[in-house]
Amino acid sequence: MYDDAAPRRLTVLGSTGSIGVNTLDVVAHLGGRERFEIMALTGNGNIELLAEQARATGARLAVTADESQYVALKDALAGSGTEVAAGRSGLAEAASMEADWVMGAIVGTAGLAPTLTAAARGATIALANKECLVSAGELFVKAVRDGGGKLIPVDSEHSAIFQCLETDQRHALERVILTASGGPFRTFSREQMANVTLQSARTHPNWSMGLKISVGSASMFNKALEMIEAKHLFNVTPEQIEVVVHPQSVVHSMVGYADGAVIAQLGVPDMRTAIGYALTYPARPQLPVDRLDFAKIARLDFEAPDEERFPALRLARTALKRGGVQAAVMNAAEETAFDAFVEERIGFLDMADIAERVMDEMTGFAPATSIEDVYAADAEARRRAAEAISRMEKAA
Amino acid sequence: MYDDAAPRRLTVLGSTGSIGVNTLDVVAHLGGRERFEIMALTGNGNIELLAEQARATGARLAVTADESQYVALKDALAGSGTEVAAGRSGLAEAASMEADWVMGAIVGTAGLAPTLTAAARGATIALANKECLVSAGELFVKAVRDGGGKLIPVDSEHSAIFQCLETDQRHALERVILTASGGPFRTFSREQMANVTLQSARTHPNWSMGLKISVGSASMFNKALEMIEAKHLFNVTPEQIEVVVHPQSVVHSMVGYADGAVIAQLGVPDMRTAIGYALTYPARPQLPVDRLDFAKIARLDFEAPDEERFPALRLARTALKRGGVQAAVMNAAEETAFDAFVEERIGFLDMADIAERVMDEMTGFAPATSIEDVYAADAEARRRAAEAISRMEKAA
Repeated sequence: MYDDAAPRRLTVLGSTGSIGVNTLDVVAHLGGRERFEIMALTGNGNIELLAEQARATGARLAVTADESQYVALKDALAGSGTEVAAGRSGLAEAASMEADWVMGAIVGTAGLAPTLTAAARGATIALANKECLVSAGELFVKAVRDGGGKLIPVDSEHSAIFQCLETDQRHALERVILTASGGPFRTFSREQMANVTLQSARTHPNWSMGLKISVGSASMFNKALEMIEAKHLFNVTPEQIEVVVHPQSVVHSMVGYADGAVIAQLGVPDMRTAIGYALTYPARPQLPVDRLDFAKIARLDFEAPDEERFPALRLARTALKRGGVQAAVMNAAEETAFDAFVEERIGFLDMADIAERVMDEMTGFAPATSIEDVYAADAEARRRAAEAISRMEKAA
Repeated sequence: MYDDAAPRRLTVLGSTGSIGVNTLDVVAHLGGRERFEIMALTGNGNIELLAEQARATGARLAVTADESQYVALKDALAGSGTEVAAGRSGLAEAASMEADWVMGAIVGTAGLAPTLTAAARGATIALANKECLVSAGELFVKAVRDGGGKLIPVDSEHSAIFQCLETDQRHALERVILTASGGPFRTFSREQMANVTLQSARTHPNWSMGLKISVGSASMFNKALEMIEAKHLFNVTPEQIEVVVHPQSVVHSMVGYADGAVIAQLGVPDMRTAIGYALTYPARPQLPVDRLDFAKIARLDFEAPDEERFPALRLARTALKRGGVQAAVMNAAEETAFDAFVEERIGFLDMADIAERVMDEMTGFAPATSIEDVYAADAEARRRAAEAISRMEKAA
C-alpha cells in the first residue's frame, strides 16, 4: 500500500513518454520522495527530459535505450548521484533493480524483455506496453504468476474492467464489455472506408503519433489488440469479450456478472486515474482529475460494432480462438500494413486483409515457449506481410 | 457465504409482498432447501400465499401480523410441521429466531420493531423497509453496529451503490450519485405540476400501489427518502449525496471517488439482482435475470433535477442538515399530505409545502433515543400535517 511507513520503491520503464510523464506527475501528487523512492527511470532519445526527471526524483539509475546517447545522459546527470546506463543491458539493469512496483510503459517490442524481467522478479507490474500481452501473453502471464507479483493494467479500458472486477466475484464474471469510440470513420460506409486517404487522417496536430492512433482507432485495430489483452488479463474466453461502440468514451469499459448486474467505470479522459489506481491498488488516491458532471454530459450512446466495416474485431476473435502466436502475427502484420498504408501503397481496408492473409499462412506455427519464439514469429509475420503487400501492389 | 457446507438460516419478514416473493424465488434458484433453511416467514392478510410459502420451504415458523387471521393460518398449515404465531408478539418471535440472514421487507412503520430486533441480534439484515433508515436511521445503524451484523440494502439504487463501493476504497469515496427516473411529470412545468390531478396519475393498472409509487416518483419524494437512507447506509454528508435524473433507469446509481473515477451499476429492472446480491454477498449468484444489451439500449440520458419543481429534494437536504427526527417528520407529514392529495383536498405541490411547514414547526424536537421517540415524532408530525391541511383548505 502506498501509505505504508516506508517509501515504496518504484521503477518507470519508459518515463519520458506520456504514460511515464503522467506517472511521475501522480507520484508527485501522492507525496513525491516522502512516499516513493525512484529506483530507475528509462527513456530513449529525450535525454533532457530524462535527466530532469532523474534529478527531480532523485532516481538511483537513469537509462537511455539509445546507446549513442550514453555520454550525453552521463553529462546531463554529472554530480547528481544518479547512475547512468544505456542500451539493452541498461534496460535489463533497470528492470532488475529491487523496485516493488514497475510501470511498464516502453512502447513496442522493445518493452517486452525488460517488462518480462521485472515480472519474473515478482514486482507489481503496472502495464501500459501492449506487446507484453498481445504478442507474448501466455509467457508474460506465466512470468507474473511464477514471480508471485501482481499485474495491473493501465490503459483506460482494462483499468476500468480491473476496477469493476471484485476479487470475490470473479467466479461470477460472465463478460467483459470493452467500449470503443468508433473513431473518425464510425459513420462511414464500407465503400467510403475503402477510399479513405491518408490525407483524411492527417488533420491531427501531432502528426506521426496522431496518425497511428487515429488510424488504429478508425480501423478499430486498437480495440482488436485490447481484446487480446483482455483475454490474458482477465482469463476470459473469446465469447466472454464484447465490444460496444460508445462515441463519447465516458464509459471506459464494463463487466457483466451472472446475476445480470453490469458494473461500469466512467471518467474524463485523464490517464492519471488509471495510473494512480495501479499505483495505490487496492486503495484509491486523491487526484486533481476533473470530475464527471452527468447533467453536462447529458447523453451517452451505444451501438453494435459492424465487423464488415471493422474486420479487425473479427481478426481478433480468430486470433483468440487459434491461440499460439496468432495474435503476435496479427499485430506484426498489421503494423507492416499500416506503414504501407501511410506510404499510400495500399488502401485503408487492405490493412486488415493483409493481416488476415498472414495469419492464415501462419496457422501452423507452434506456440511461443520463449521470447525468442515471439521475436521470430513477429519477424516472419512482417516478412510475409511485406510480400503480401508487394503482391497486392502488382495485382493493382 | 451461501455456498458453505451447512445451509444458511434465513428469515423473511414480509414474505408475501413483492420483495418477499422475489426473495423466495431467488432462494429457490440458488438451491432451495439444499442451501437454505427457512426459519420464519411473516405476512399480513394473504394467508393463502403465506401458507403455501411455508409449506414449499418447510419454514419452521409462519406469522401473520393480523391477529384476526391466526386461526386461518393455523388451519392452513395444519399437519405441515410449521409453527404459527400472530400479531406484534408473533413478529417479534420471528425476528428473534436464530437466522443468519434476515430480509426486512415489511412495508411501513410496522417493519421498524421486528427489523430492529433482528439487527440487534447480529443477523445480516437485507433491508427493503424504508422506515428503518428514514425514520430511525441513527437507532437502526447503532443496532446493527452493536449487534455485530451487516446491513445490505435491497432497493435498486442503494444496492447499486453498495455494489460499486469497494471496502478497501471507502476512504476515497467522494460522492454517491442516486439516479432518478424523473417520473411521469418529468417534463411538466411548475404550473402544470401545480394542477396535476389525481386522475392524471390513475392510469396505473394496480391502482392503490401504483398511485403511491407514481405520485412518489412524480414528486421525487421517493428519491428524497433514498437520500436519507443513503446518508445512513454509506455514512456520507448531505453534500456527498447527488441526484441525477436518468429517464431510462438503466444506471441504477453510481459512486464517485477521489481519483475522478465513477463506478456505476447497471441492469434491467429486476429486483432479484439486488436480492441475490444481499443474499450471497460478498459473492454473486447465478440468476435468470435478463442481460443488458447496450446496442439495443442505444442511449442513456442524464439531466439535473429541478428543485423548484421537485421541492422534495430540497426538503431531504434540510432534513439531512437538521438531523434528529426531521426525516421521520418529513416522511410522516408527507404521507399524511399524500392521503389528502388522493382525497383531492390539496394540490400536487401542496404535499411538499405541508411537509416543509411541519418540519419547520418541529425543529425543536430532541433526537430519538428509542423507537418510542420515533413513533411519537411520527404521530405528532401526522397530527400537525392534518392541521396544516385543514388550514390550507379553509384558506382556499
